[in-house]
Amino acid sequence: MAIVVQKFGGTSVADAEKIRAAATRALKAYQDGHQVVVVASARGKQTDQLVADALELNPNPPQREMDMLLSTGEQQTVSLMAMALDTMGQKAISFTGQQIQMVTDDAHGKARIQEIGAERIRHSLDAGHICIVAGFQGVDENGNITTLGRGGSDTSAVALAVALGAPTCEIYTDVDGIYTTDPRKYPNAVKMDQISYDEMLEMASLGAGVMHSRAIEFGKKYDVQIHVRSSMNDKTGTIITHEVPKMEGILVSGATVQKDLAKISLIGVDNKPGNAARVFAHMATAQVSVNDIIQTEVSVDKANLSFTIARSDLANAKAAIDEFREDIHCEDVFTREDVAQVSVVGVGMRSHCGVAQTMFAALAEQKVNIDSITTSEIRISCLLDVPDAEKALVAVCDAFELDRPAADRQPAE
Amino acid sequence: MAIVVQKFGGTSVADAEKIRAAATRALKAYQDGHQVVVVASARGKQTDQLVADALELNPNPPQREMDMLLSTGEQQTVSLMAMALDTMGQKAISFTGQQIQMVTDDAHGKARIQEIGAERIRHSLDAGHICIVAGFQGVDENGNITTLGRGGSDTSAVALAVALGAPTCEIYTDVDGIYTTDPRKYPNAVKMDQISYDEMLEMASLGAGVMHSRAIEFGKKYDVQIHVRSSMNDKTGTIITHEVPKMEGILVSGATVQKDLAKISLIGVDNKPGNAARVFAHMATAQVSVNDIIQTEVSVDKANLSFTIARSDLANAKAAIDEFREDIHCEDVFTREDVAQVSVVGVGMRSHCGVAQTMFAALAEQKVNIDSITTSEIRISCLLDVPDAEKALVAVCDAFELDRPAADRQPAE
Repeated sequence: MAIVVQKFGGTSVADAEKIRAAATRALKAYQDGHQVVVVASARGKQTDQLVADALELNPNPPQREMDMLLSTGEQQTVSLMAMALDTMGQKAISFTGQQIQMVTDDAHGKARIQEIGAERIRHSLDAGHICIVAGFQGVDENGNITTLGRGGSDTSAVALAVALGAPTCEIYTDVDGIYTTDPRKYPNAVKMDQISYDEMLEMASLGAGVMHSRAIEFGKKYDVQIHVRSSMNDKTGTIITHEVPKMEGILVSGATVQKDLAKISLIGVDNKPGNAARVFAHMATAQVSVNDIIQTEVSVDKANLSFTIARSDLANAKAAIDEFREDIHCEDVFTREDVAQVSVVGVGMRSHCGVAQTMFAALAEQKVNIDSITTSEIRISCLLDVPDAEKALVAVCDAFELDRPAADRQPAE
Repeated sequence: MAIVVQKFGGTSVADAEKIRAAATRALKAYQDGHQVVVVASARGKQTDQLVADALELNPNPPQREMDMLLSTGEQQTVSLMAMALDTMGQKAISFTGQQIQMVTDDAHGKARIQEIGAERIRHSLDAGHICIVAGFQGVDENGNITTLGRGGSDTSAVALAVALGAPTCEIYTDVDGIYTTDPRKYPNAVKMDQISYDEMLEMASLGAGVMHSRAIEFGKKYDVQIHVRSSMNDKTGTIITHEVPKMEGILVSGATVQKDLAKISLIGVDNKPGNAARVFAHMATAQVSVNDIIQTEVSVDKANLSFTIARSDLANAKAAIDEFREDIHCEDVFTREDVAQVSVVGVGMRSHCGVAQTMFAALAEQKVNIDSITTSEIRISCLLDVPDAEKALVAVCDAFELDRPAADRQPAE
């Protein structure tokens, strides 16, 4: 009798009717012969309301108290879902993160899971209960309530699947699965049947906000398949799984566009060991998250250093640069606030060439000027002007046939 | 540096402004040199909303899950109050019942406190924090969240005062203290400066719903004074304390009226050992709470047995009687749904006679017919017709001068 972990996000438990629907789905899995663990988020806009309540009292609330407050949202959902199952004649029991010993570090608001005590859940499962666990929350070693950050319920669910030895974790959401690209920007986007953990991690870091990165990392590390699917229907969604050989035949799995970026170029920096480290240490201190970095040598002892950041971090970044600019003898600083980035992701790139060429040709045909290019083993990203972003995405998606299922595309050469 | 425990009820923390006011009061006590522990209830109508959410999903929700749900209300208040204190530059830390090891039995919805681990609070107090504890909640020995029943935050607060060795527990509420009788029914009622635990317990059992009985019992047993006072002003309220000799000079401390009673008379019951026990065992099984009992012998082997109950329990009581009526050879059953009870309470009755006479004379003067009379050592209760209830209360209050402070009344003879 396999254990199934089902995670329901906020929109899937927003009201009594949806809680009942989620409970019905859990019951069906139970009746199909599984032991069922449900992980639930706070109802709909509950978390936003609690944040508003907090800010009304304190514009900068202590993070420990914020976690204490926000964790109540999930606690409410899980008890309500247990009540719903009770009316269906099903034994059910709800748990807080504390009660199942979801132990995290003490980084309130962005805690990382360290250990999960699975005994209590196993005991309840063996007694015939459906277990309903509050997502997003844990406790540190001193019993303080912690939260895992936005989207943390995904991580709770995958971590529980790991702890319980469940082969699959189902993530129920309000979309049918993961699409080749954002359907609002490319209406012909198609749902993927499968995507590898690495591709999904790249997509997540490129702003395709379907899944929490930590959840994907857990799944990859501990070999738990993640099935992202709709809570509204019974269709198979997208399976996030280990790379299998047939994935290599797919050159590009998905494409993304980010339009809220800024680019900073530090010109004529002393090319000495430690200078790049100094730059990015200052950025980290200023809470600026740095995306891609390009360094180019311009002379024997001088280099240019460019990087992209979220546009909202630009003011902080500039202030930080003023602090160390003299130290690294930076000759000039250029910033651009009007940059976007179009990226393609696919494990097929590892073994096939020609992806970059296809991408650049598609952009050239649309007369899109490329500012700069960065790549990883399974990703190519082009920085370009914001006004070109949408047509660039469409051109790239068309070029890689992201409007049709992977099996129907031209085979890679 | 004495420890002060302050409890704020739901109306005293109903919104951000009131939470800030409560925090300010706690801060003032801290600045006056005390170590301060705050116990807070759920905000305003929060608990009612959660109950409604539950009933929407399940008309008869499992009590364990109900406790899981309701306990979030207090958890929200305490974190918000800690945030409010933070903006005032005051170190503050909030705790759930679980976090301070408020251990109860497992009677969900009406759990009784068994033990409190005071170490965590002491540690935080010594580190200069104001500690804010979620009232109304605890955990059983298996870590399940329990609640103490309506008004349970009073009990949390007094129990914490006991555990921490605090001499006084302050109960902040929306009235100035405890009145000689309900001012809505007797506008000249005056606030008492003091009342003994025993009197307060009698008043509470007679429906004067100011304080949770368990809280008063804790205070009495462990010698913690309870100061019931307003959260809107700085006036001294009413101190609930041990009986002191001067209280004996006060014949009657307070009066109550209950209008929602029914009376059941079992006529011609076999007067055999165990029959009364059988009757009340059946009532307990039927969840009927029995107030006063009067048994009178009518012959060598027959007795009449009368008792009062809440009118809402009448149907249950009648059904229970049908089950055992034959067994005790009860000849007839009379029920009255139109009875009220006026009571006077005062420790002075122990040492002074004449109280009953004064009460009956006052009622006679108003031509109020008395159905039956019951007494305890410090209480006299008269059952009478509902339409007479209000004028009976006024007559009794006038007779015992409950419109003036105890010190100004005629001395007892």
